[in-house]
Amino acid sequence: MTLPAPLTGVVPPVCTPLTPDREVDVPSLLRLVDHLVAGGVHGLFVLGTTSEAAFLTDAQRRLVVETVTGRVEGRLPVLAGVIDMTTARVLDHVRAVTAAGADAVVVTAPFYTSTHPREIARHYRLVAAGSPVPVIAYDLPSGVHTKLPADVVLDLAAEGVLAGLKDSSGDLAGFRTVVSGARAHPGISGFSVLTGSELIIDAALAVGADGAVPGLANVDPEGYVRLDRLCRAGDLDAARAEQERLCALFGMVSVGDPARMGASSSALGAFKAALHLRGVIDCPVTAEPQVPLSAAEVERVAAFLAAAGLL
Amino acid sequence: MTLPAPLTGVVPPVCTPLTPDREVDVPSLLRLVDHLVAGGVHGLFVLGTTSEAAFLTDAQRRLVVETVTGRVEGRLPVLAGVIDMTTARVLDHVRAVTAAGADAVVVTAPFYTSTHPREIARHYRLVAAGSPVPVIAYDLPSGVHTKLPADVVLDLAAEGVLAGLKDSSGDLAGFRTVVSGARAHPGISGFSVLTGSELIIDAALAVGADGAVPGLANVDPEGYVRLDRLCRAGDLDAARAEQERLCALFGMVSVGDPARMGASSSALGAFKAALHLRGVIDCPVTAEPQVPLSAAEVERVAAFLAAAGLL
Amino acid sequence: MTLPAPLTGVVPPVCTPLTPDREVDVPSLLRLVDHLVAGGVHGLFVLGTTSEAAFLTDAQRRLVVETVTGRVEGRLPVLAGVIDMTTARVLDHVRAVTAAGADAVVVTAPFYTSTHPREIARHYRLVAAGSPVPVIAYDLPSGVHTKLPADVVLDLAAEGVLAGLKDSSGDLAGFRTVVSGARAHPGISGFSVLTGSELIIDAALAVGADGAVPGLANVDPEGYVRLDRLCRAGDLDAARAEQERLCALFGMVSVGDPARMGASSSALGAFKAALHLRGVIDCPVTAEPQVPLSAAEVERVAAFLAAAGLL
Amino acid sequence: MTLPAPLTGVVPPVCTPLTPDREVDVPSLLRLVDHLVAGGVHGLFVLGTTSEAAFLTDAQRRLVVETVTGRVEGRLPVLAGVIDMTTARVLDHVRAVTAAGADAVVVTAPFYTSTHPREIARHYRLVAAGSPVPVIAYDLPSGVHTKLPADVVLDLAAEGVLAGLKDSSGDLAGFRTVVSGARAHPGISGFSVLTGSELIIDAALAVGADGAVPGLANVDPEGYVRLDRLCRAGDLDAARAEQERLCALFGMVSVGDPARMGASSSALGAFKAALHLRGVIDCPVTAEPQVPLSAAEVERVAAFLAAAGLL
Repeated sequence: MTLPAPLTGVVPPVCTPLTPDREVDVPSLLRLVDHLVAGGVHGLFVLGTTSEAAFLTDAQRRLVVETVTGRVEGRLPVLAGVIDMTTARVLDHVRAVTAAGADAVVVTAPFYTSTHPREIARHYRLVAAGSPVPVIAYDLPSGVHTKLPADVVLDLAAEGVLAGLKDSSGDLAGFRTVVSGARAHPGISGFSVLTGSELIIDAALAVGADGAVPGLANVDPEGYVRLDRLCRAGDLDAARAEQERLCALFGMVSVGDPARMGASSSALGAFKAALHLRGVIDCPVTAEPQVPLSAAEVERVAAFLAAAGLL
Repeated sequence: MTLPAPLTGVVPPVCTPLTPDREVDVPSLLRLVDHLVAGGVHGLFVLGTTSEAAFLTDAQRRLVVETVTGRVEGRLPVLAGVIDMTTARVLDHVRAVTAAGADAVVVTAPFYTSTHPREIARHYRLVAAGSPVPVIAYDLPSGVHTKLPADVVLDLAAEGVLAGLKDSSGDLAGFRTVVSGARAHPGISGFSVLTGSELIIDAALAVGADGAVPGLANVDPEGYVRLDRLCRAGDLDAARAEQERLCALFGMVSVGDPARMGASSSALGAFKAALHLRGVIDCPVTAEPQVPLSAAEVERVAAFLAAAGLL
Repeated sequence: MTLPAPLTGVVPPVCTPLTPDREVDVPSLLRLVDHLVAGGVHGLFVLGTTSEAAFLTDAQRRLVVETVTGRVEGRLPVLAGVIDMTTARVLDHVRAVTAAGADAVVVTAPFYTSTHPREIARHYRLVAAGSPVPVIAYDLPSGVHTKLPADVVLDLAAEGVLAGLKDSSGDLAGFRTVVSGARAHPGISGFSVLTGSELIIDAALAVGADGAVPGLANVDPEGYVRLDRLCRAGDLDAARAEQERLCALFGMVSVGDPARMGASSSALGAFKAALHLRGVIDCPVTAEPQVPLSAAEVERVAAFLAAAGLL
Repeated sequence: MTLPAPLTGVVPPVCTPLTPDREVDVPSLLRLVDHLVAGGVHGLFVLGTTSEAAFLTDAQRRLVVETVTGRVEGRLPVLAGVIDMTTARVLDHVRAVTAAGADAVVVTAPFYTSTHPREIARHYRLVAAGSPVPVIAYDLPSGVHTKLPADVVLDLAAEGVLAGLKDSSGDLAGFRTVVSGARAHPGISGFSVLTGSELIIDAALAVGADGAVPGLANVDPEGYVRLDRLCRAGDLDAARAEQERLCALFGMVSVGDPARMGASSSALGAFKAALHLRGVIDCPVTAEPQVPLSAAEVERVAAFLAAAGLL
C-alpha cells in the first residue's frame, strides 16, 4: 500500500518472537501481528530497535518482513527498518525488505564510522535514490552516537528525500523544531513526524507530532490507541491519566539487575516476558548475546502487568 | 595456514581499492597485496576499519577475502574482520570469511545496542564456539562506544576463547595491563597482543606488544617493517627516528577540511590518495557516503609523500 | 521571604550585566530586575548558568545577590545558584548567598571529579544540613556530566533534603518520572518541580511541572508570563501559539559562528545583545574567555527581536 | 625559585592529608613533604586532582600552599593547581597561590561551561597575562570534558603563554605530537612536557617527556625516582621491571567497590590509606562527599603495599 502522508496514529515497533534456539518464531509473530491489529494500531514498524533488528541475520530479517506483510495484506502500512552501518549495506537491506513487501524504509545515520552532517545528508540522498518506497529518518543517538540535526532533516524533507522522521532521541525541544519547521516550510507537505518517546506521547502530540512508535504498545496496544484517540479528541485530562498508567507499566523495563545485564536487554526481555505472560508469544527468549531475565525478574514483570489490569 | 601463536611483526589493515562506481577493484587489490608482501609485512588484516569494512556489502567482503587469500597462498597469515552488530550476524560473517580462507577472525564488542561486560564476554564465547579459526578481540571504542575491560580480555584468554587482542583504543596503560596480565597468567600462552596505535609502535613494543596493525603501513610498509626490526634489535634511537618519520607522514590524515567531512573520511581518503599517487591502486575513491578529498587536499597528501621521500 | 512550597510560575535565571572591563554593572542589573518584575515573573534565580555564575568571582557573586535581594525586598523569592565542584566549596557559597539574602540555594551534582550516585546523594545531604534555606537540585548534565537519577531525587525529597528540582536536562520523560513520583509519594509534599527547557514549557506544565526557569525570559518576560497564564487557564491553542512565538525568538541563540565560538557563548551573547538592544542593560559584553558576537551577529539578534515585535 | 626550563624528573601531585573533621592536617602534610623530598623527587605539585583540590575551600588551598612552600624553602620548585571553571576565578586563585609562594601555576581548560578551542586559547592568554609565574597547561579530559588540541598547546608555547604541559589525558600519541612539535619549533625552547600517566612513564620518557607527575609517587617516591634514573641511564630492562612493579602497586586504586563509590574516591582513598599504613599521615580520610573505603578494602591496600615490600 502507499504510505499515508502524513502517517498518523500508533505504529508499534513489532517485537520479533524467537524460538528457544533463536530462530524466528513465525506462529508467535503472526499472533503478535493479530494482537496489534486487533488492538487498533495504525501501522506496523518491523525490524526496528525494539524488534531486535540489530540481532537478526539477513535471512531472519527477510522472514520477518515476509511474515508480517503476508499477514497484514495491505490493511495497514508496514514500515521496515534497514539498520546497518553505511550506504551500500543499507541499500542491500532496502532491496530485501521492499522485495518482501515493506511500504517504507526507516534509516538511521551511519554508525560505527564517524560521520559529518554532510555525509549524513549524502547517505540519505543515496538511500532515497535507490529506494522504491519512501524513506523515514530514524534519529537514535543512543544507538548511532550522532543526533540528526533539525536543519539537515528539514532540508532533506524539502528536497523530497525524506518522507518522515522517527525521533527516538528523547529531545522534545529538537522534535518541536522539526515539527514547526516542517509546517512552516512551503516546500514540505505530508511529512510524518513520529515520536519514539513512549512516556510523553501526549506531550509530543500536543506539540504537533503526527504519531507515535511506542515499544510498550506491543504489550498494551489498546492503551496506546486509547491515548492517541483521547489526545486527538482534546480530552487532555483523560489522556494524561492514560499516559501515566502506561508510564507506570513501562516501569517493567528496569526489572533486570544492572550488575548482570544491560538496560536494553532488560527492556527487551521485559517486553517479551510480558507478551509471553499475556499468552501472545510462545517463548520469551531474546537474541544473543543478551543476558535473559531471571525467574524473579519475570515475576516482577508479571506484577507490573497485574497492576495495569493486563493479566 | 595456522595462525602463529603469538602473531608478531607488522600486520597492516589492508585498504580496499574501489572502482569509480564503488565496486572492489580486484587488480588494484592484488597490486596492493604484492606491495605489502614485497614490503616485508608479517601478516595481512583484511576487512578492518581501515579496509572500510563498515562500508562494504557482504558480497564485496567475500570478494576481498577470496582475492587476498588467493594471492597470498599461505605465505602469510590473513586475518579477517567480521564487523557487525551482534552475535548471530557476526557468525554469518565468520562462516563467509573462513570459507574464503581467512586464518583468523577479528571481532569487536557488540555495537548499536548498549551492552554489559557480561554480554560482551558472552558474545566472544559464542563467536569462538562457532568459529573454525582463532578469534582476536578488536578493541575500538571510537567505533563501538565501549572499551574492552582488561580483566574481561584476560579471562577470555585464559578460557581459550580469545587468541589475541588488537587494541585500537589509544590507551597504552590499559594495553600494558593486558600485556603484563597475559604474561603473568599461568593459563595463558601464545596470546597475541597487537597495537593499532601507529604513532607509538616503538612504545608499544617496548612495553611488550607482539606486533602492530598500522593503517599507514599501506602507504609505507617498508618503514613499519624497518621500525619493527629496529625495535626488536634494541636500536632504540634509530627506532625512535623511524617512528618519528612515520608520525610526520601520518600528518596526511588531517588534510580534509573538517567543515566539510569527517575525520575518518579524511584519513581513509588520504591513505587511498597516497596509494594512488604511489601508483599502487588505480583509483583513490572511498566508499559512500564519505565525502572525497578535493584536488587541493590531494596535493597536500602528495607533499607529505614527497617530504618522506615516497614520491 | 519563605520559599513558596511549591514554587510556581516563571522564575528567570537572571543575566548578569557587566561593564566593558567585566565588572558587575549594578545599575544595569537593577534595571534588569525592574524589567523582570514589571514583566510579572514569579521569582528570580540569580547565579545560574545563564547568569554566567561559572564566570563570576566570589566577590562578584556576592555583589549580584546583594544587589538583587536589595532591590526585590521580599516581593519575590530570590533563588541563588551555588555552583561549585564539591561539598565544602558549595557550602562556602551557601554561607555567602544566604548572608546576602537568598531565599533558596540551587545546587548541582559534584563536577570535575567523577562521582557515584551515592556520593551525589551524600553531597545533597551535607549541603542541606549546612544550609539555612531550602535546597533545590539543579540537573544540568551538559555542565556536570552526570544526570541526576529520578530515584535519587525522589529519595532526597522524601527525606526532606531537597525542596525542589530545576531540570535542565532536556529529558521530559525523566522529568515526568519525578513529577509523578513526587505526587504519588506519601512522604513528599510541596516539592517544586521546575523545567529549564524554555522551548517546551507548555508541555512541561501539561505533564505537571510547577514552574519554569527560562533564560529567554530575560529578553521577553511578558511572553513567558503570558504562556504560563494561558497554560494554567487551559487555553492550550493560545498557549501553543505563544510558546511557538518564543521558540522562534529563541533562534537568536544560534547567531554565533560555530567556527569561532562555543554554543554557550553564542547563546549568552545573544541574550545580552538583546537586552542591550531593548535598552535594559548598558553593555552587552560577556565574561572571559567567551568570544563576543560580531556586529553582523548582533544584527541578526536585532532581526529576531524585530520579528517578535520586541524592538 | 625560578621554574627550571624545562622542568625534569619526578614531580608528585601532593596528597592533602585531612583531619577527621576534614580540615587540612598540617603536621601530616609537613611529614608528607619530608617523605617526598627524602625520596628524591624533583618538584612538588600541590592542589592538583590527586591533591583533592576540587574538594578544598579557598582557605584550605591557601593553607596547603603556604605549608608546603614554607617547608620546601626553595629547595625544589613548587607548582600549584588553580583549578576553577573560568578565567576570572582562575586568576583569583593565581593571586592566592603566588602570594603563598608557588613557583608556577597549573591551569586546566575551562569547564562546566562548553568551550571552543579559540576560547580555550583566550583563557590561557588571559591567565598568563595576569600571572607573575609561569603557566603550565593541564590536559585532563576526564575532569574538564575537553581535550587540549596539540596545535593549540604548541601555538601557545610559541607565543610564550605556556611554559609547559601536564598531560593526564592518557593519549600517548597526542603527547608525542606535542613533544615532537615543541622540539621542532624554532620559537619554542625550555618547554616542559610532563606526563601524568603513571603506568607508562618509561614509555613517555622514551618518546621525549621531560618528566612525570605520578599520583602513586606519594606512596612510593623512591620507586618513581629510581624509574626516572634508570630511564635516563638507558637501562631499559631495569626501567621496565621497575615500572611494572609500580603498575602492580597501582592496582590498589581499584580496591573500592564500584557499586558503592566512584573510581576517583577509590583511588584517592587508596593512596591515603597507603600513606596512613606507611605511617606518613595521621588519618586516611578523604574529603566530602567521597565515600570512604571499608576496613576490608583498606586491608586490600595493605596487601598491595606488602607485596611491593612497602610495609
